[in-house]
Amino acid sequence: MTLRVSSAFDGGNAIVLEASAPGAIRAHIAKDAEADFRQWFHLRVSGADAPIAVRLENAREATYAQGFVGYRAVASTDRQRWYRVETSFDDGVLTVRHPPAPSVWLAYFAPYSMERHHDLVARAASDPRVTLEVLGATPDGQDLDCLHVGEGPFEAWCIARQHPGETMAEHFVEGLLARLLDADDPVARALLARMRFHVVPNMNPDGSRRGHLRTNARGANLNREWREPSLDRSPEVALVRARMESTGVDLCLDVHGDEELPYCFIAGPDGIPSLRPAQRDALARFREELARRSPDFQTARGYPPAAPGEADLRLATNWVAERFGCLAMTLEMPFKDAANHPMPDTGWSPARSAHLASACLDTLLAVAEATPLGVRSPA
Amino acid sequence: MTLRVSSAFDGGNAIVLEASAPGAIRAHIAKDAEADFRQWFHLRVSGADAPIAVRLENAREATYAQGFVGYRAVASTDRQRWYRVETSFDDGVLTVRHPPAPSVWLAYFAPYSMERHHDLVARAASDPRVTLEVLGATPDGQDLDCLHVGEGPFEAWCIARQHPGETMAEHFVEGLLARLLDADDPVARALLARMRFHVVPNMNPDGSRRGHLRTNARGANLNREWREPSLDRSPEVALVRARMESTGVDLCLDVHGDEELPYCFIAGPDGIPSLRPAQRDALARFREELARRSPDFQTARGYPPAAPGEADLRLATNWVAERFGCLAMTLEMPFKDAANHPMPDTGWSPARSAHLASACLDTLLAVAEATPLGVRSPA
Amino acid sequence: MTLRVSSAFDGGNAIVLEASAPGAIRAHIAKDAEADFRQWFHLRVSGADAPIAVRLENAREATYAQGFVGYRAVASTDRQRWYRVETSFDDGVLTVRHPPAPSVWLAYFAPYSMERHHDLVARAASDPRVTLEVLGATPDGQDLDCLHVGEGPFEAWCIARQHPGETMAEHFVEGLLARLLDADDPVARALLARMRFHVVPNMNPDGSRRGHLRTNARGANLNREWREPSLDRSPEVALVRARMESTGVDLCLDVHGDEELPYCFIAGPDGIPSLRPAQRDALARFREELARRSPDFQTARGYPPAAPGEADLRLATNWVAERFGCLAMTLEMPFKDAANHPMPDTGWSPARSAHLASACLDTLLAVAEATPLGVRSPA
Amino acid sequence: MTLRVSSAFDGGNAIVLEASAPGAIRAHIAKDAEADFRQWFHLRVSGADAPIAVRLENAREATYAQGFVGYRAVASTDRQRWYRVETSFDDGVLTVRHPPAPSVWLAYFAPYSMERHHDLVARAASDPRVTLEVLGATPDGQDLDCLHVGEGPFEAWCIARQHPGETMAEHFVEGLLARLLDADDPVARALLARMRFHVVPNMNPDGSRRGHLRTNARGANLNREWREPSLDRSPEVALVRARMESTGVDLCLDVHGDEELPYCFIAGPDGIPSLRPAQRDALARFREELARRSPDFQTARGYPPAAPGEADLRLATNWVAERFGCLAMTLEMPFKDAANHPMPDTGWSPARSAHLASACLDTLLAVAEATPLGVRSPA
Repeated sequence: MTLRVSSAFDGGNAIVLEASAPGAIRAHIAKDAEADFRQWFHLRVSGADAPIAVRLENAREATYAQGFVGYRAVASTDRQRWYRVETSFDDGVLTVRHPPAPSVWLAYFAPYSMERHHDLVARAASDPRVTLEVLGATPDGQDLDCLHVGEGPFEAWCIARQHPGETMAEHFVEGLLARLLDADDPVARALLARMRFHVVPNMNPDGSRRGHLRTNARGANLNREWREPSLDRSPEVALVRARMESTGVDLCLDVHGDEELPYCFIAGPDGIPSLRPAQRDALARFREELARRSPDFQTARGYPPAAPGEADLRLATNWVAERFGCLAMTLEMPFKDAANHPMPDTGWSPARSAHLASACLDTLLAVAEATPLGVRSPA
Repeated sequence: MTLRVSSAFDGGNAIVLEASAPGAIRAHIAKDAEADFRQWFHLRVSGADAPIAVRLENAREATYAQGFVGYRAVASTDRQRWYRVETSFDDGVLTVRHPPAPSVWLAYFAPYSMERHHDLVARAASDPRVTLEVLGATPDGQDLDCLHVGEGPFEAWCIARQHPGETMAEHFVEGLLARLLDADDPVARALLARMRFHVVPNMNPDGSRRGHLRTNARGANLNREWREPSLDRSPEVALVRARMESTGVDLCLDVHGDEELPYCFIAGPDGIPSLRPAQRDALARFREELARRSPDFQTARGYPPAAPGEADLRLATNWVAERFGCLAMTLEMPFKDAANHPMPDTGWSPARSAHLASACLDTLLAVAEATPLGVRSPA
Repeated sequence: MTLRVSSAFDGGNAIVLEASAPGAIRAHIAKDAEADFRQWFHLRVSGADAPIAVRLENAREATYAQGFVGYRAVASTDRQRWYRVETSFDDGVLTVRHPPAPSVWLAYFAPYSMERHHDLVARAASDPRVTLEVLGATPDGQDLDCLHVGEGPFEAWCIARQHPGETMAEHFVEGLLARLLDADDPVARALLARMRFHVVPNMNPDGSRRGHLRTNARGANLNREWREPSLDRSPEVALVRARMESTGVDLCLDVHGDEELPYCFIAGPDGIPSLRPAQRDALARFREELARRSPDFQTARGYPPAAPGEADLRLATNWVAERFGCLAMTLEMPFKDAANHPMPDTGWSPARSAHLASACLDTLLAVAEATPLGVRSPA
Repeated sequence: MTLRVSSAFDGGNAIVLEASAPGAIRAHIAKDAEADFRQWFHLRVSGADAPIAVRLENAREATYAQGFVGYRAVASTDRQRWYRVETSFDDGVLTVRHPPAPSVWLAYFAPYSMERHHDLVARAASDPRVTLEVLGATPDGQDLDCLHVGEGPFEAWCIARQHPGETMAEHFVEGLLARLLDADDPVARALLARMRFHVVPNMNPDGSRRGHLRTNARGANLNREWREPSLDRSPEVALVRARMESTGVDLCLDVHGDEELPYCFIAGPDGIPSLRPAQRDALARFREELARRSPDFQTARGYPPAAPGEADLRLATNWVAERFGCLAMTLEMPFKDAANHPMPDTGWSPARSAHLASACLDTLLAVAEATPLGVRSPA
């Protein structure tokens, strides 16, 4: 049986240097096109009749190399169930190990392919209450899908996967939509009566398909493009921003994964120039209520807040909060585990991402009435 | 095609008086064996080549005849999806209508058969964390199943379907177990770490199979047997009560349906002699927190509280609260709809019962820490 | 944990004599009501903290005691997957063994409950091409269901489970209907264009629910009632026979299980007075073609043919062949295994019964054109 | 709502010329890279608030333009169910119509993505009886997957989708594997005991992903490469041919779709130099037996046989038959419908492809014993 290592598939990322023995596979993580980011990897090893060790030799050059400390990769043989495997990070090399297997898929986190994306969107759009809108085209010519659902005046946006390697963000959206479209769920029904949801399950289809960590096909880190998006370099942001202008925004949840911190947490628009106490209070309340509803979430750990007036308005959360005067949040999930409520065998996972989405909807119902309304229609 | 009306199946209840034409089927609701209760009905009409009208002519003699005012029966042709049908209650006759159909099942509420019960128990017991215990035998010789799961010191009991015609109670338990045994759910994980659950999905298998409204095979209304259960007349209660004595009880949820009130609500042990402020507070808090978590639940409507000292200690909730000094609650769901959050096409349903169970677990996590502990092991 | 043995459920059969220790459970097989048949057993053992041994002490009195030689019982803990367990037959006692288990179901063959029957019928009837007809009532008041489907002039009857303990017969029908109603299957489409199928999935609902081996609630062995069925004693046969008279019959397949022979085989109407060569040829051809299509089937072993003129016309196959001059067959499946194509871990099973049904449809397509037509409409 | 037409996804093929109004979308079918073939198309139209008409204006230049006569395109909104839609071919323009829809996928035939391919392979390989082997890499660096299963000495190869636009070939393989790996199916069990299957579900991953009709990434029509495959230009064939040399071949089934003929049929190696009567007989017998087993198959229509000695040995079937002296066949399914057994609403479909695969296994069992053995191990 011949050993084969490949990454020529949706979201694949690995440059094979040597694959002569299962226990000594050498590879590099490719950097994002037109940019200097790298960390996401996704490869398939076939024909290994001895224990597998994949050495990612340039891991020290990863964007968040510290994220590999205390980290374990995920693997799957059936492409349904992803489990953690033995992983070490020594001398700047990330080594991922797996028992012998005819074929195994290894990745930084459970992948989410564009085919699965299209299935997700098609399934959601088959609900007569949902309106599917393609906002426009990415640089690679892919559709940028947006789903609208709900009757209420409160405009709630959820955008995910600006950084394509943070696949947990789209698993989160899958859970969000599953619950929101459950016609018998009283929370979903109450929310849809009060709000109109605008969901972009994948802000960065090009980076997703190409196996990028952080950028689109032009090398743009979309979450640094909100102040001045360009139809050429960052049309994904330009299109969503324009649509937000047409709806107004009362709440915006931007869903991410964090390579280093082993926690779920929310970052807010702390340092924006126009920050109002009502925004600060709504943020604090959302965090607290979510922590009460999901033991996987917590409020003790996270990013340090920006000093007043020092917010980077190129970020979605800051720009939206500043522009619409509303509650805007960046939700971060770990690549590792939630250390406050750990599941050692599994680590953070697609299923837990979906459960967190469900708890966010519970929380939204609890806090929505007290939440400051944003700029509903632009001046 | 010959018209046929039958009720000779699990949970069937109808005495056919005349079945010569689809539009003029006449029947009686049979009373519970050895007792004077009647209201549950469940029948199958086959071969109707014209619009069906089933007249239940003794509906005025039903135990809660007022429950038929503003009520619509449920029907199913595929035995999976149950929907509401045109129903009228005039001159003491309940008339249930349905379009022509080769075969349709009509019932007071979506049924829950003993086969489904056995499947539910077998599925739950296949989880290695669950211990299945058969507490003993019913008068008809059926097993009384109890499931135990969880690691924590807090002893939480949930018993359902003391009144067998209140099938929503077992649909509720199905939802409860589905969520509690979801290994990825952070709320379930947190609860199982703190509590030990004891779940009796069906307190009254004999009444269930026989198509009773309220009693077991001996004619005993189990929710009037808790003060002095008898191994002969009410072994179901005697067995569960004895098991409670061996575990102690910190919380007990007794799940029911209400024939008349179109609301979900919780009745507490208001009038028990030993009622402590902590019990009253825990009850109030549970109600409030549940209402915040499930828009299908509410606190404005329900039973009037018993006057101090006047509680009927034959009821499970009162007896348990008195005996163990803990939080004990009777959860009621409607046969009709939840008027505070109505779904006119569906009314109250199995799916909504399951969602309410899920919200009860959310609530339990929120209130458990503040809940007074009961008598953990009897003196 | 208390040991419990019960049979108070659909199809249950066991009289418990002693259940004080898991390894020494003593029980009898109950005989059919009003008749002297016994062999089917179905019980649940719960709370066994040591290896289980159930001794069926009157097994020597079973109708086909020789069937217990070389036989292994089936068991299930999840009620989905049934597997063979260690079984011995010594000194007239059948001993069934199982490892310790919180709850395990043991049976003579994988059960088929009336709830599953109703689900099967409801699912089939939801296909708009199918007509469901309730032919009438059994002695216990249950519905006798018959499904009609197909456009063609050839009248094909399939009746199953005259003997209620032969549950493989209804598993067979489940497979038959699944394939016949697969709208994309070219064989099914061709058959439905040429034939009209009349399927009675369960000829004996009363015996099924009561846990009988061979008779209905009146003690009638239905497959000895075809010459002179009685509306009082054997209405199941009377109703089906009358319906056959109204359609005529070109082919009739009567589905059974055999307690002793470890083979699938077909018995024909060899000794009927009017046997024509065309009937004999059609029978031989069906057998041969089926053996070519299903390696689980064979033609070498079976019942010895009746001598000319000595057929027992009380049997369905003989009566139908005599009355309609058509191809009539009794299909037998083993309780043990198909020794010509054995699966030692599984033995004969529900899945194999369904596959055999599928092969029968293939065969039917191959032989139908050459099959002698019966009496299409009676004089 | 903005109109959007895209093809930037797995298997997409359409060059949009104009998309200003739903009823006047103009596009071209792109030709295969490095080759002059075109016919496959696959596009998504979103945001159509009026009836859709997609004009494929270069359809007259399609490789089998006559295949568009009497043809209807397929569409899906949920990406699960594909249905036929109104299609016309006038003046060399193929116009595909669809009612207004938020998002609809249109294609030449129901697609089969590489993600689905990977799921198929992973699912099959999870069966412990199956050995998955990656034979090597395609020009685009994708894995070429081969599945081996079975114990017997007879070496049966099945290869599919040499022409990537013939997606029904991989739907066929999905059906083949589903049945072959059904552990309870007596035909599958008998086949696996006698044969060893070697299945290549997709011979042309690069063409599949790129949306080609007939060639790989190098522009090679793989079914013209068998005589002299090149590791540079047609490694897919070189790798499979080499593997065949190592196993020997007793039977080879090469699965295709035909753009023009509305029939399922089998083409054989009629004109190969070494054709033996035994090969001819085996071929005739397979065709006949398959036609008896599947009314969707027929023997009256097909390609005219090559004259003796004039076979093109660049084709898989001819080369294999010549090299191994065995039964080799090209199975063709229609893009349109099977006119001998039509389903007008559906046309030919994935489900029918799977059923045909099942019938091929039935046929294989019937003919295998009489089939001439090939060269088991090369001289």
